[in-house]
Amino acid sequence: MRKTILVDMDGVMADVYARFFEIHEQETGQRLSVDDIAGKLEAEAFDNQRLWVTTPGFFRHLPVMKGSREALLKLIEHYRILVVSLATEFPHALTDKQLWLDEHFPFIGWQNTVFCGDKSIIDADIMIDDHFKNLDHFRGETLMFTQPPNMLVTDTRHRRVNSWEEIEKLLLP
Amino acid sequence: MRKTILVDMDGVMADVYARFFEIHEQETGQRLSVDDIAGKLEAEAFDNQRLWVTTPGFFRHLPVMKGSREALLKLIEHYRILVVSLATEFPHALTDKQLWLDEHFPFIGWQNTVFCGDKSIIDADIMIDDHFKNLDHFRGETLMFTQPPNMLVTDTRHRRVNSWEEIEKLLLP
Repeated sequence: MRKTILVDMDGVMADVYARFFEIHEQETGQRLSVDDIAGKLEAEAFDNQRLWVTTPGFFRHLPVMKGSREALLKLIEHYRILVVSLATEFPHALTDKQLWLDEHFPFIGWQNTVFCGDKSIIDADIMIDDHFKNLDHFRGETLMFTQPPNMLVTDTRHRRVNSWEEIEKLLLP
Repeated sequence: MRKTILVDMDGVMADVYARFFEIHEQETGQRLSVDDIAGKLEAEAFDNQRLWVTTPGFFRHLPVMKGSREALLKLIEHYRILVVSLATEFPHALTDKQLWLDEHFPFIGWQNTVFCGDKSIIDADIMIDDHFKNLDHFRGETLMFTQPPNMLVTDTRHRRVNSWEEIEKLLLP
């Protein structure tokens, strides 16, 4: 049987940080870099982050993460891909997120999307995520996608991946 | 550890058939009863059902199933309750469904909501549902909530429950 990979959306399939930097610059005139917010959670890094993500439309227009579409098109030939996103806290994000997936990743399909409030309810073989709150409770193999919240962590609980090209090399036969 | 119950929304927590009958009568002048559509899936029973459920707002204003709120308020003292709804096929339903839950079942919380395209990905102890496509693939105990699609089935694969009062009697200590 094919192995199942749980793939996170924000920070992994969707380049949410590119959009955070953009809005922050529009609001403050200040251009932040990844190094400026290394080690911080989103809400610590950007004062208005909660306002942004609760605004209808925010998740509908995020840029696609570099290399994610190409890699997932290949991985789906060998694995079951489940997109799993912590999203029920923000009701207005839900419709936007599914419409975004339908547009940019139509080959995955609504059958393989999960919006939930706790990822530990789903068992699978591999998880690709950028947040410890998800990775730490997963029983399978974990790939930690490099993003500001995990950048400074040097322990080896989770295997670090810096790009979708690295994920391809690790997971494709 | 507490047992986990997966609770379906449409036809179990939300009285979607009451609304189907109402809209059907508005559109055709004909008042159908449960017996008229016994044994039929929603899309077989109502020609325009797909149009109705893809219209933004439909799931936001459904009536609450009789007895569901009272029963779940008691059950949540003894079980982990996860609301699990097949909903990602209809992106515009997602936001409406979470807002509806937040309004009518705030004690369950967004942490315990799951919107997905396939319920077999979630393992738990008990499932309350009205559709065989969900009940048949569940490994735990199944409670089949009586609704038109399952009304005529007499086999004993799943334990039939006709009301939330019956569920309380079965599951409360």
